[in-house]
Amino acid sequence: MRISVTYHLAGSRRAAAATARDIAFEQTVELPPDAVPPDVAERIAGRVESVRPLGRGRSAAVISYDAAVICGDLPQLLNLLFGNISLKAGILVADVAWPMKLLAVLGGPALGIAGMRGLAGVRDRPLLCTALKPLGLSAAQLAERAHRFALAGIDLVKDDHSLVDQQTAPFRDRVERCQAAVDRANRATGGHTLYLPNVTGAPMELAARATFARNVGCRGVIVNALPAGLGVLRSVGSTGLAVMSHPSLAGAFFHQDHGIAPAVLLGDLFRLAGSDAVIYPNVGGRFTFSEATCVAINERLRRPLGLVAPAFPVPAGGIDAARVPHWIERYGADTIFLLGASLYRQRDWASAAQRLVEAVRRHGDG
Amino acid sequence: MRISVTYHLAGSRRAAAATARDIAFEQTVELPPDAVPPDVAERIAGRVESVRPLGRGRSAAVISYDAAVICGDLPQLLNLLFGNISLKAGILVADVAWPMKLLAVLGGPALGIAGMRGLAGVRDRPLLCTALKPLGLSAAQLAERAHRFALAGIDLVKDDHSLVDQQTAPFRDRVERCQAAVDRANRATGGHTLYLPNVTGAPMELAARATFARNVGCRGVIVNALPAGLGVLRSVGSTGLAVMSHPSLAGAFFHQDHGIAPAVLLGDLFRLAGSDAVIYPNVGGRFTFSEATCVAINERLRRPLGLVAPAFPVPAGGIDAARVPHWIERYGADTIFLLGASLYRQRDWASAAQRLVEAVRRHGDG
Repeated sequence: MRISVTYHLAGSRRAAAATARDIAFEQTVELPPDAVPPDVAERIAGRVESVRPLGRGRSAAVISYDAAVICGDLPQLLNLLFGNISLKAGILVADVAWPMKLLAVLGGPALGIAGMRGLAGVRDRPLLCTALKPLGLSAAQLAERAHRFALAGIDLVKDDHSLVDQQTAPFRDRVERCQAAVDRANRATGGHTLYLPNVTGAPMELAARATFARNVGCRGVIVNALPAGLGVLRSVGSTGLAVMSHPSLAGAFFHQDHGIAPAVLLGDLFRLAGSDAVIYPNVGGRFTFSEATCVAINERLRRPLGLVAPAFPVPAGGIDAARVPHWIERYGADTIFLLGASLYRQRDWASAAQRLVEAVRRHGDG
Repeated sequence: MRISVTYHLAGSRRAAAATARDIAFEQTVELPPDAVPPDVAERIAGRVESVRPLGRGRSAAVISYDAAVICGDLPQLLNLLFGNISLKAGILVADVAWPMKLLAVLGGPALGIAGMRGLAGVRDRPLLCTALKPLGLSAAQLAERAHRFALAGIDLVKDDHSLVDQQTAPFRDRVERCQAAVDRANRATGGHTLYLPNVTGAPMELAARATFARNVGCRGVIVNALPAGLGVLRSVGSTGLAVMSHPSLAGAFFHQDHGIAPAVLLGDLFRLAGSDAVIYPNVGGRFTFSEATCVAINERLRRPLGLVAPAFPVPAGGIDAARVPHWIERYGADTIFLLGASLYRQRDWASAAQRLVEAVRRHGDG
């Protein structure tokens, strides 16, 4: 059972072949070949399977590793793919081919697209999500916003990812009030809006926050996956809560010739770690992804991958009511559209949210 | 109580001032100014304190934030400094000025340099550390290496950071054997060598591994801090175990014009998160730091910082017995020198380790 990693490397085919041999040892035995017993090198060091030129002074090398060195452990998976070599120059993790057995051990999302659709009571149209913001409002003010968004029919109302446990809106007070506000709106509309609080924190705080959220009736949460540690998602998902991951810090990895490709990090790794839905910055918003990158992330989150459930892509930004039909055509129905600033900039954002909901439902019927 | 962050930004002073205003809102209220109630913007949005040209089309902007938005929470600190803006281009966190109260809340290392010296029984000379490797050896073979390093007088014998719970040397078997081997050597020599197992894992596994390690007599551990999540270090340190952090994945942040400067990430943030010692790739080894970067990391780890204890820098690589006096002069006595490959490449690495120990002790006496 081997995992095959495609690295894009600086240099011609010959230079890249030397770099690839170096990576194969660095990421496993972490010693030069002459200091490793031959039987250990044979079993444990990576194997350079192929090297081919990409043009423009770059090459692609495929290195396979015995997947047993991962032990089904997310931090060790990150470490194997890019740990030490992050400290070298010109190395990009461009693709990973996952062996079935490893997929089974890693597990992926507990709910996935089907499970989240069940919670939200939405069968086949795209879902709409918005964020409670800004940081600085009181818990009561945020709950009032949650109430109005739920009345408008927004499917998922999440905390802004910077809302933690600040004195302006302490975690427990905020979560209790926002969930109650959404419950009240759901009773009024017969809807199923979900409120997703941000439970990010150091591990013990995170676990306590997730438990509290579940106890007051939340069915899902958001987590800043990289600041919290990608390994924490699985334990949150195992409690039955839907996990929406936020890409905070992920941009550190997204350089043209160094890092981990967005589709691998946000598409494969965030999904395998246990995200039911993954937020990423949509093209045309405030950030720098191309449309091709967005489509590649969508594809990775939803593609068949052993027994691993597909996860929702959550493109954020660059979307408004007028453009919703365009984005539904482009990204497909298995998408959660996250709108924040474009709603809040409108004087009457609750009505804007309602128009958005209508646009999505109309398109779904059409 | 405000925290001041110096960002290096692409563009002239005028362009950088616009970027800085954008960052001040993006990292806090996450809305454009026209969508934020004025009193919230006043209290919560970052404040651009200054912008000055750096030459070569770059500028430095100082933005201050109300430190209360961090809630003493490590993941939120990372999120505030670089979360969303990691996804934009040309933004480097170059420096942070820490308010005293925030330092007190974050805490930093539980033991620090003085505490680790106490555990290792070494008063004023530099410490020597080596790594048990390669991955692929059995627990018995690794324990035999630990025994010989301890007999040679190496102060700290740590697991290679890729040793997790692989079948070749399962965690519990390995840790029990290695600690017993080091105990045996210490009884023979009267020494105080410490064995530091790698406890990295998802949060629950990590906590269980740290507890097991303590129960079999380990006094410290290593953690791959970023793969595990920086927020986990404090809870490990609170158990009384010394925490040595490994920089796996950190290179993702180290781009000339984007990311977090090595001295800030490995020097300030790893220390504030609770590392008693921080490994980094020394100049002249396999990685890419300049000597100025190494010196800057050393300085950050040891500088006075409110009530936060100083932490040991652990330069790794580029060091051998002949060069030890040079590096002691350059980096000072409050340093742990980590030698791996340069020892293992020698036919009789146990004797090489002993010569190294003698070189350090001789220098300390001289």
